[in-house]
This record gives sequence, structure tokens and C-alpha cells, in this order.
Amino acid sequence: MDKSADRKKDFLHGGSRDPEERVARIKAFIEGGLYGEMRDFLREMEPEDIAEILNEFSAEDKLRIFGSLSSDSAAVVLDVTDPQTRLQILQGFDNKKLARVLDEMPVDEAADVIEDVAEEKREGLLDLMEQEDAEEVEEILGYPEDSAGRVMNPNFVFVRQDDDVEDAIKHIRGIELDEDFYNVYVVDEKRRLKGIVPLRKFLLSPSGTLVRNIMEQDVHSVLVDTDQEQAAMIMKKYDLFSLPVVDDKGELVGRITADDIIDVIDEERAEDISKMTGTIEEERGTETTFRATRNRLPWLIVCMIGSIVTGLVIQMFEVTLAEMIALVSFIPVITATGGNSGVQASTVVVRGIALGHMDFGKLGDEIRRQFKIAVSLGFVCGMVLTVLASFWKRDSHLGLIAGLSIFLVVIWSNFVGVFVPVIFKRMNIDPAIASGPLITTLNDVIGVFIYLNVATAFIS
Amino acid sequence: MDKSADRKKDFLHGGSRDPEERVARIKAFIEGGLYGEMRDFLREMEPEDIAEILNEFSAEDKLRIFGSLSSDSAAVVLDVTDPQTRLQILQGFDNKKLARVLDEMPVDEAADVIEDVAEEKREGLLDLMEQEDAEEVEEILGYPEDSAGRVMNPNFVFVRQDDDVEDAIKHIRGIELDEDFYNVYVVDEKRRLKGIVPLRKFLLSPSGTLVRNIMEQDVHSVLVDTDQEQAAMIMKKYDLFSLPVVDDKGELVGRITADDIIDVIDEERAEDISKMTGTIEEERGTETTFRATRNRLPWLIVCMIGSIVTGLVIQMFEVTLAEMIALVSFIPVITATGGNSGVQASTVVVRGIALGHMDFGKLGDEIRRQFKIAVSLGFVCGMVLTVLASFWKRDSHLGLIAGLSIFLVVIWSNFVGVFVPVIFKRMNIDPAIASGPLITTLNDVIGVFIYLNVATAFIS
Repeated sequence: MDKSADRKKDFLHGGSRDPEERVARIKAFIEGGLYGEMRDFLREMEPEDIAEILNEFSAEDKLRIFGSLSSDSAAVVLDVTDPQTRLQILQGFDNKKLARVLDEMPVDEAADVIEDVAEEKREGLLDLMEQEDAEEVEEILGYPEDSAGRVMNPNFVFVRQDDDVEDAIKHIRGIELDEDFYNVYVVDEKRRLKGIVPLRKFLLSPSGTLVRNIMEQDVHSVLVDTDQEQAAMIMKKYDLFSLPVVDDKGELVGRITADDIIDVIDEERAEDISKMTGTIEEERGTETTFRATRNRLPWLIVCMIGSIVTGLVIQMFEVTLAEMIALVSFIPVITATGGNSGVQASTVVVRGIALGHMDFGKLGDEIRRQFKIAVSLGFVCGMVLTVLASFWKRDSHLGLIAGLSIFLVVIWSNFVGVFVPVIFKRMNIDPAIASGPLITTLNDVIGVFIYLNVATAFIS
Repeated sequence: MDKSADRKKDFLHGGSRDPEERVARIKAFIEGGLYGEMRDFLREMEPEDIAEILNEFSAEDKLRIFGSLSSDSAAVVLDVTDPQTRLQILQGFDNKKLARVLDEMPVDEAADVIEDVAEEKREGLLDLMEQEDAEEVEEILGYPEDSAGRVMNPNFVFVRQDDDVEDAIKHIRGIELDEDFYNVYVVDEKRRLKGIVPLRKFLLSPSGTLVRNIMEQDVHSVLVDTDQEQAAMIMKKYDLFSLPVVDDKGELVGRITADDIIDVIDEERAEDISKMTGTIEEERGTETTFRATRNRLPWLIVCMIGSIVTGLVIQMFEVTLAEMIALVSFIPVITATGGNSGVQASTVVVRGIALGHMDFGKLGDEIRRQFKIAVSLGFVCGMVLTVLASFWKRDSHLGLIAGLSIFLVVIWSNFVGVFVPVIFKRMNIDPAIASGPLITTLNDVIGVFIYLNVATAFIS
């Protein structure tokens, strides 16, 4: 936490912001049975900070702490705490009290929580919630996973085009939303989106002005079933604070806000990294051994079989290797360096594709550019290895074999690193997958092939 | 782009949103010398969309298109277009006109642009800008790179605690900002931050109410020199739309908005990926061959040298290998599988550390969990390889050597993948660095060592 925030908290709450110290104090309260003191202490903390330290407690103590929070604090804690803690609270906590907490949450977040509730408990929980909230939650859960409908909040403020600014303000005053709002939507009689008015404009417009005269008409929106990443990209591109969501009849059904989108982008980042490292999906640190194994195993097995192909290439050259056993020492140098430079190239290309820098027209330029970089990298690596290998093996012949091979292998690996993502993109496969173990395995096979060919040519 | 947005644009702009078609039409306008028509066509497009297609044009045409935009469109285009296009515009465009465009930009974005301007041109450009804007730009550029001061906007709306709501609204009406705002800051006579009022509250409060009675006092803020990623994490954690920035005297100097933070998170994501793949910094697709080489080379060389250590291990076992040359075929299987499973484990751990799931208390649990996963992965890989290798080499002896080795190697690699990031974290080194080539290289060395020891034991 930054110093400025620190200083302010110390002043406001009269306590340390050090999480370890807070955990220790709460543990002391629990041990001493000082529940009143604990409640006071927790009241001084921000719910996000409570959520963050909950995983330091036993399941029983988690419930004790959660139970002593006000409904609105509990709502934030349940929303932002880690998945394991959330699950423990959902399993251990009384349904009636849980329903009251869920009623306090923005509906999109409540839906997110209820998704985690065991099937048999879910129905009962929804029955205990306020009817309107429960209905909205069920509606959100009806949209496809990762769609705009899942992250939107179905509560928003709307006015009519022909409203007077003063009437509109009066209307807005009467509304209580579960989440803050900064934009007011303008709809027609069929609730179809017609425009948007930033709150600021209401303050600036003299009474008597019609809403249609201050609204912005050129509004970006997405359909409920649009992918959430696409919605995020639109908000990022046009610097939007909120994005209206419409159904297929054009009727306004919800809004996505910037804080939702920050979460989406962070999730997508984790997804990218999973792809690059060859796990199927993100592990949350709560999976069973079986689930985690099932998640990581497929790529491991695929790459193991791929590297058996490299083994087959080596088998083809057993005569050469038997003749000069010192050649074997360079096999890991070839595979490691080829693998690394291939991943470097593919990462640059995948990023370029994602940002749209590598469109139709520019592809040729980019390939030329990457080729020059590859030759330059290969040249330096080749020189370095020639010198190192000659000294190590006291054999300049061997040094030359290794150096020339690495020069060719680096160029080749870069070539693969550039082309595989481009081809994947053309075939509508996510190019990020290419940056992972796939390119490394491919480069192993061909790298070893190049090396042993060079070696055989030199020896004979 | 989604269908809903498409339909609306077609209606609003009477044109296709297909970028290729737009490029073709603009090229036709330029070829035919129909500059008036081009201007009209561009006026119907959103500046973000213009920025996106600019890289399809020659440097000359870019200037032609940019020159025909209104200052406010040009300001957005200059802000969001790709770095190469931006540089071409900055180099080719008249300083006077450029200054007018910069005046239109939010100051933080203008500073971002001016940073890219060649030193000798910069001074002249700042002289041509409005004095106030120029001064603010210079102030922003004085803050350290990647700090909150660099991404904040120094223009914001502030009122006094003892103002009446009505006076405050009158004051707000008189202000024109270069960027939208949704929150009003409350300061004391020394301009120190005292609170925040969401715009909505002004609409809801009866006149006569004092600002101090509707303001939220418990405000998060950061210092100007706080790292931008830390600022982003605070905004993400507490779901903030804007974050005030104060100097070391507590004086309010700027605000960071959610759209800035979305850009920061996206940048950090690119940085993570760079670390994982062993490039020093992100390549933007515009670097010279020399710069790109300098960027990628260090890790390549480090890993090449690391893999020479693996070569030394192999050299130690040359007698065993010469005795049974078929053993060589499995070296790539060992290194590839060990490398992959190490990266998988480290990614999970690095992510866990970043999200704070792997704090002091939980470390022991997590290590036990990872160990079970490793044994389970190693067991399956070991069985598969034993069968495959026995059939391939028609030698169950060899199959057993390979299978047992891979079992041990997978367990070991997972162990390294878990511990290296944890140790890095303890030593205050960014654990993300560990997920890259480092772990792969380390696992190569030890994997090969395990394998050749197992082989030697079996043979003798």
C-alpha cells in the first residue's frame, strides 16, 4: 500500500494497516472470546481488506468473522474474497442470512456468487431473496458464459427523450440503485436505446431544456450475447466508463461499467498466460489433485510424444554420434536456444496480431523485419558458441559445427515463431496457443535435425 | 465489432464499418484528388476508427488524412494511433498546427505524445502551445516514468468543505475540463484533499446542504511517485472510477481515471509476457533490427550458457552413453517434459503470489498440494513413456529407464517451478521472471543429471 494511503488510514482508523498485525489482533479477539471488540475492530476496516486476510483463518473462524459483519460489508467481502473462502462461507452460512447479504450486492455480482452455490442449495437461497433481485439473478444466469449479459448490471437509470431536464432530475432523485452511476440512458417508448446523458450535463443545463437536446446520440452498445472480451475492447478503444447492453430487439437491458471491465481484462490476461504455458484453464489454487492433473496433463503428454519425434531424428544419426560422442553434449544447447528464440519471436507476433498491427498489407514488411532480427541474433549466438565450444572441447572443428548449427537453428526457430501464429490466425485458431509448448517442440525436432546434418557433413 | 453496434453505425453514418472498404474508399478519394469528399467521409467516422486504419497508408497520405481532420478528432487520433504512425505525424506535420492539436488533448495524453517528439523539436512545440497546457505538460514529464504522476490528469474539479451545494454547482458550471469528470474533490484552504463527492450527490441534495455533509471522507489516494501498477491495483481492488493523486505535502495535484487504468493493466500484461519469454521489454513492431536484437539477445545468451552446463553433465556420462547409444534419443524427451511441467507449476505459483493467495501462512498447504499434483503427473507420464519407449526401442529395459526417469524429472521440475518464484519473492525479485527461460534451463541441467544417473545404475 502506498504511503499516502497509509498515513490517511492511520489517521482515520487509528490502527495499523499491516495485514499480519491485523490477523494477529483478530485471532487474539477470537481466542479471548472478545466478539464485541472484534466487531468494532472489523467495522474500522474496509471490507476489501477484510476479504484479503480471510484466508489466514480456519473455516470456522471465517464464518465467525463473516457473521459479525454488517450486511453491506459482508456483501463486498463475499464478492471479492478468494474462491475457496467464498465456497466455505456459502457452505457453512445460514441460508436466510446469506440471502440478506446477497440482496445487498449489485445483481451482477450476486449472480456471480450464486453460480458457485451447490445446485440443491441454490433454489432455496433464491426463494429467500427479495423477489425482484432473485428474478434478475436468474435472468443473468440464463445468458451464455463470458457474455456481456453475464457481467452487466440490469439496474440503470433511464429517461425519455422528450423529458424536461428538471423532470428528469426529479425522476433520477427517486431512484435507488445497487451500484453507482455516472451516465443516464435515454430510451423511447419501447425502451430502445436512443442516447446517453453524462450526469454532468444535467448540472450544466438550464431547466426547460429537453433531454433530446443534451443527449449524445452516437452511442456504442453491445448485444447481451456479445463476448465479454469484445465488450472490454470496445470500452478500452473508445475510453468509455460505461457501455449499454441491448437485446436482439434493441431494448436496453443493462450496463457494463469500467470496474467490471478491469476484472475482465485481468481474467483474459490470466487466460493468455495459461495458453502460453500449456495448461487448459487457470488454476485457482483450490483444485483437487485430480482436476489439476487433468488440466495440465494433455499438453505434457502431447509434448512428450512430440519430443519422441526428436528422439527418432537422433536415432537416424546414431552412427555419427557413436563416432564422435562429444557431439551429444550440444543437443541441449541446440534445443534450449532454438526453443527460446522461437518463443521470443512468436510472442512479438502474437501481440502484434492482437493489437492489429499485423494486418493484410503489413505482413510482408513484418516478415522481412523479423528475418533481419533472426539473422542478427543467429550471428551473435553462433560466434559466441563457436568460441565457447572450441575452448571447452579443445577442438575448433567441434566449435565450428556447434556455432554454424546454432546460427541456422536460431534463424529457423524465428521463422517458425513468426509463421505458426500467422497461419493459426488465418485458420481462425487463437494464435496465443502457438506461443506455448507447440513451437518449442517443433523447433526441437528441426533444430536437432539441422545440427546432426551439419555434424555429419563436417565429419565425413 | 458486434452486430448491434454495426447496425447503429450503418444507420447513423450511412456507411460500411468494414475497415478494408473504408481504406479503399479513402485511397480512391486521394487518387482522384477529391479532398472535400474525403473530409466529409472522415467526419462521419469516429476518430478511434480513423486511428486504426492509418497504418494502411503511406507516410505522405497519413499526413494528408491527419491534416484534413478537425483539431478535436486529430487529438484523439494522435493519442490512440500506433507508435510508428504517431512518429511519422510528429516528424512530418507543421509545428504550429501540431500545437493546436495538442492543446485539444487531455494534458496527460499530450505529455505522452510530446515525450515521443525529438528533443530539438520539443522546445519549439511547447512554445507554440497555450502556456498553461505547456506548463502542465512539463510538470507531468518531470515525474518518474511509470509513476502515478505520469498517467494522472492535472485538471480536476474541486470545491471547499464549507461551500453550500448550490454555490458548488454554480462553481462547477463555470469550469471547462479537457476530460469528462464524475467526481468532485473537496479540499481545504491549503488544497489538501479532504473528501470526494460523486456528481450524483449534487443532484440529490437539497440546496442549503454543506459540501462537508455529503462528502465521502474515507478517500483512497496515491502519491505522485507511486508506481502506476500499484495505483491500478488500488483502483481494481476498491472498484474506483477515479483516484486522486497528492504530492508529499498532501496537496491534491491530479486524478487518475478508470480509462487510464485499463491502459496500464493492458501494458502490464504485455510486460508479464515479455518476462515469461525472456525479452527485456515489449517490442512495438517499429524497432530497428539493432534494438530488437539488443532486447532479445541477453536471455538467449544466458540460456545458451546455462545449457552448456547441461552439456557438461552429459560429458560426465559419456562412457555410459557410448556403451548404449540408444540412450541419447531420450535426452530431448527429458528436457522438453521437465521444462514444460516446470513452467506450468511456476505459472500457477506466480499467479497465486500476484493475487496474494500465497501468503506466509498458506505456503505450506500450497507446497503439499503442488507435490501431490507433481507425483500424479509424474506417474502418468512415467507409465506412458515406459510403454512407448519399450515398443519403440523393443527393449523393456530401456523403457523402464526412460519411464522411471521421467517420473522423477517431472516431480523435480514441479518442485523447482514452485520454489524458485517463492524464493524470488522473498528476495524482492519479481517472481514472473522465474517463469521464463530460467526455470527451463535449470530443469534441463538437473533432468539430464537424473536421467543419466538412472541409466548408469540400471546398466551396471
